Amino acid sequence: MTSADRSAADAPSPAPRKKVGRRPGGADTRAAVLESARAEFAARGYEKASMRAIARGAGVDAALLHHYFGSKDRLFLAALEFPVDPEQVVAHVLGGDRGVVGERVARFVLGLWEQPAVLERLLALIRAAATTEAVAQLMREFAVGQLIGRIAAGLEVEDPELRTELMVSQIIGLAMVRYVIKVEPLASATTEELVPLLAPTFQRYLTGA
Amino acid sequence: MTSADRSAADAPSPAPRKKVGRRPGGADTRAAVLESARAEFAARGYEKASMRAIARGAGVDAALLHHYFGSKDRLFLAALEFPVDPEQVVAHVLGGDRGVVGERVARFVLGLWEQPAVLERLLALIRAAATTEAVAQLMREFAVGQLIGRIAAGLEVEDPELRTELMVSQIIGLAMVRYVIKVEPLASATTEELVPLLAPTFQRYLTGA
Repeated sequence: MTSADRSAADAPSPAPRKKVGRRPGGADTRAAVLESARAEFAARGYEKASMRAIARGAGVDAALLHHYFGSKDRLFLAALEFPVDPEQVVAHVLGGDRGVVGERVARFVLGLWEQPAVLERLLALIRAAATTEAVAQLMREFAVGQLIGRIAAGLEVEDPELRTELMVSQIIGLAMVRYVIKVEPLASATTEELVPLLAPTFQRYLTGA
Repeated sequence: MTSADRSAADAPSPAPRKKVGRRPGGADTRAAVLESARAEFAARGYEKASMRAIARGAGVDAALLHHYFGSKDRLFLAALEFPVDPEQVVAHVLGGDRGVVGERVARFVLGLWEQPAVLERLLALIRAAATTEAVAQLMREFAVGQLIGRIAAGLEVEDPELRTELMVSQIIGLAMVRYVIKVEPLASATTEELVPLLAPTFQRYLTGA
C-alpha cells in the first residue's frame, strides 16, 4: 500500500480531489506516464525497460519521472497497481523474531487480504499472470529480483530461494482457493482459524524448523 | 487420466483414429453429448445439472449417456477434460501408510505434472477458473463433493475439510509458481529436490503431525 500509486489514493479526503485545482496537467501527466510505463514494461520486460523510453513515450522529462516515482521499481509498482510494497514485505518477513516468522507471515498476508482494495488488485494480478504470458514474465522478473531474492538473502537455510518460492506458492494457492474458487470452509475461515495451520508451513519453509 | 475422455485419448495408435471407420455417428454423438454437457453444467452448475437435459440437448437417449459415461461425475470429468480421476486421487491419498502420506501426495502430484497432457489440461482449468466465475463455481462444487469431501472423510484430524483444502491450495499455488509464472529455481527444481520440502507440509495438513 505504499507504492506511489497507492499513497496517492490513500491521501486524506480523497473525494474532492478530482474537483479542486491541481498543478495544470498533473493528473494527465501521471496517467500518461503510467500508460507509457505499462507499454514499455509489456514490450521489453522489467529488466530491459528503459526509464528514458518511458519518459519519452509520455512526453515528459526523465528527471520528472524520477521526481514522481523515484526509481524503476516504484514506477513498475504504480503502473501495475501492485497491491503491496515489496520493501515492506521484505522488512516484515526478515525483521522481528525469526522464531515466529511463520506466524508473522500468516497474519501479515491474511491481514492484507482483509483490505478489499488490496485483495481485488492481487486477484487481478493473479488472473492476469494466469492468462497473459507478458504479465507472468513481469511478475517473474520482478518477484525474483525485488521480493524473493531479497527475502532469500536474509534466510539462514539451504536453498533459500526455493524455500521462499514455496512460501509464495502457498500464499498464491491460498488466494486462489479462498478468494477465486471460493471453496468452503476455507473461503469463510477466520484468520484465527487459519494462522495455526499456516504458520508452521511458513516457519518450516523459511527456517527449516 | 482415467476419465472417459482421457481413456479414449490414451487408446493405442491414436493417429489414424480420425480416419478409420467407427460405428456410424459414434464420434459425432460423443462430441454432441460433451457439448450439451458443457452447456448444461455451465448453465445450471454441477449439482443441478440434469443427465436427462444433457441427453435431450444432444438428441440421444438418457440410457446411452449412462452407457457411455456411467454417471454424472464421469460425464463432468469428460466434458471439462479434467486431467485426473478424483476417485484415483482419493484412493491414492487415503490408501497406504498414513505415516508417509505427505511424501506420497508430493510424489503423486509432481509425477502427474510430468505428463505434458495432464499438466496442460490442469493449467487450462486453473486459467479458466481464475477468469470465469462459472468454471470456478463448477470446480468449487465438484472439488468439494468429489475430492475434498471424500479425502476429508478419511482423515483423523480436526477440521479435515479445511486441512484438505490447504493441501489443495499448496498444490494449486505450486502449479502457478512452477508452471504459469515459472519462477526459478522452483520452475526447474526436480521432484527429488521438492519432495523433502513439500512432504512435511502435506503430512502436517493431513495428519496434524
